[in-house]
Amino acid sequence: MTSVAAYAAPAPKAPLERTTIERRAVGEFDVLIDIKFAGICHSDIHQVREGWGKAIFPMVPGHEIAGIVAEVGSGVTKYAVGDRVGVGCMVDSCRECDNCKAGLQQYCDQRPTMTYNGIGKDGRPTYGGYSQKIVVDENYVVRIPDGLALDVAAPLLCAGITTYSPLKHWNAGPGKKVAVVGFGGLGHVGVKIAHALGAEVTVLSQSLRKKDDGLKLGADHYHATSDPKTFEDLKGTFDLILNTVSAPLDFAAFLSLLRTDGAMVNVGLPEEPVQIVLQSLFGNRRSVSSSSIGGIPETQEMLDFCAEHNLGAEIELIGASEINDAYERVLASDVRYRFVIDTATI
Amino acid sequence: MTSVAAYAAPAPKAPLERTTIERRAVGEFDVLIDIKFAGICHSDIHQVREGWGKAIFPMVPGHEIAGIVAEVGSGVTKYAVGDRVGVGCMVDSCRECDNCKAGLQQYCDQRPTMTYNGIGKDGRPTYGGYSQKIVVDENYVVRIPDGLALDVAAPLLCAGITTYSPLKHWNAGPGKKVAVVGFGGLGHVGVKIAHALGAEVTVLSQSLRKKDDGLKLGADHYHATSDPKTFEDLKGTFDLILNTVSAPLDFAAFLSLLRTDGAMVNVGLPEEPVQIVLQSLFGNRRSVSSSSIGGIPETQEMLDFCAEHNLGAEIELIGASEINDAYERVLASDVRYRFVIDTATI
Repeated sequence: MTSVAAYAAPAPKAPLERTTIERRAVGEFDVLIDIKFAGICHSDIHQVREGWGKAIFPMVPGHEIAGIVAEVGSGVTKYAVGDRVGVGCMVDSCRECDNCKAGLQQYCDQRPTMTYNGIGKDGRPTYGGYSQKIVVDENYVVRIPDGLALDVAAPLLCAGITTYSPLKHWNAGPGKKVAVVGFGGLGHVGVKIAHALGAEVTVLSQSLRKKDDGLKLGADHYHATSDPKTFEDLKGTFDLILNTVSAPLDFAAFLSLLRTDGAMVNVGLPEEPVQIVLQSLFGNRRSVSSSSIGGIPETQEMLDFCAEHNLGAEIELIGASEINDAYERVLASDVRYRFVIDTATI
Repeated sequence: MTSVAAYAAPAPKAPLERTTIERRAVGEFDVLIDIKFAGICHSDIHQVREGWGKAIFPMVPGHEIAGIVAEVGSGVTKYAVGDRVGVGCMVDSCRECDNCKAGLQQYCDQRPTMTYNGIGKDGRPTYGGYSQKIVVDENYVVRIPDGLALDVAAPLLCAGITTYSPLKHWNAGPGKKVAVVGFGGLGHVGVKIAHALGAEVTVLSQSLRKKDDGLKLGADHYHATSDPKTFEDLKGTFDLILNTVSAPLDFAAFLSLLRTDGAMVNVGLPEEPVQIVLQSLFGNRRSVSSSSIGGIPETQEMLDFCAEHNLGAEIELIGASEINDAYERVLASDVRYRFVIDTATI
């Protein structure tokens, strides 16, 4: 066991504060990572505040982790000391079900072990990336290519794969029209990736406040959803709508923007059930779906793709003492576009 | 113009009665069909009773039409007098939009002209198959192969294509597990077709009342949805759920039966919005979709497939004077499995 400095919420809704946690000893297939950067994901705030149900405290959030390998177990073959690596939302899974065998660990039949607010196979709670070190089985670690700076790579471990995976699965690419709903932490990365994949990209955001950024970061078009004309003008346009917004939407209005066989894929999940009129799917064989992060092989593929396209998140780097303020700013949509904690400041 | 005997509802919710309607003169590309049989579809009753909104009266329902070509226009190349033919839910469409050009006339951007309760390009109301003759543009007529009796072929023009098209689109076939929800007019044909396509077929019906029929007609398994154990035993099983029921369902329960990347496709449309918890899609990249009949080329493909597999609807043949009683029996689910009107009795 190793004592490690971390930032934790001691109880539901409590401010995060500096503390010390224990990391397990480095096992045969484990990698000890010196964490350099950890992104702040909106879901960190959901979980600290128990917005998605009862959670485990103290909680050390953080599932957008970038760092350097500091030690490896005797059986580790994939990584060596000094390697640049990342850890995302999962640190383990059953490894035996069809989904795990297919590299879709995010859909593990036994549910994957989440990086924090989970229980590991040793029965102990997991603690996330707002800390100086983490111990992870090598099979749940990915390599961050040399071309990608660690700070802008960190948010790719959640925001990147959450958008890359559905964009790939639903064939975003040349000749395809893709709308990204919401232009925040997920949305801005989704726009960059969809653009790099060759799709024609439209941002659908509440206002035109971030339009200049959107066009600069890869969007071909940018429309305000507060303007009813947007829904008239774009009727039947898109092959894919990637919805990154977790606030409830008027689904019928957004579905009307899909062309025949178009899909609306939701990666932002509202807490309430969604009302869907099946008639809005019927007339054009449209579908509504959802997608959860991505498997480990696809996370590696995504990082390689992003390095190749020189594509990272747009970040605001902060010190650990600023985490609680940053949470308030995320809730106020006052971040362009992802807070990343410099873990040296913990 | 030709006067033709027909059965019509003179006003919303009124009983159907014998009347005479006018059919247009046979135009250059038209086919005059002596109707032999017309199926009674649940949607006929919805429309006569204005369950789907305001309708056009008098209404001659019927979009499951089988008959013999009696006359052709000078420009007709596809059919000759004496040919065995069918007409389904559409008798025209814009022919110019991408969907029409792709043979997906059912998704025509201008909406197709429906066989009845629609307005033709001549501005006149359309009248359906509960009549002795109909005039239809040859491009919206399909051929009924010799191997297929006209009476059991008639229901294929709606119930057949409505199930065949999504089964094909979502790749029902060998190695795939398909559930058909509901075992009525649509469901029983869906089971036959899914079985003929090579899928492993499960019926999910409210009770086990029709289980023997289900197994005889091609189902490998038959479960009652009134039994909570069904949902425990079949969790994560199906690649495709074809829902033929228009009554509201517990969508979360049915979605839990889908495996990763599974789709629930709804061809029975409830009048009310459906509550969907996106979380039930999220954990396995499931999707909810809907599908409307099929295009003209696919309708022909379906008839050819059914003839090849010696596959028709299970029918109860009735005289025209029994139509109103038959409607009551359809509403009471007291039909095995489709009423077909012998139009010689009109």
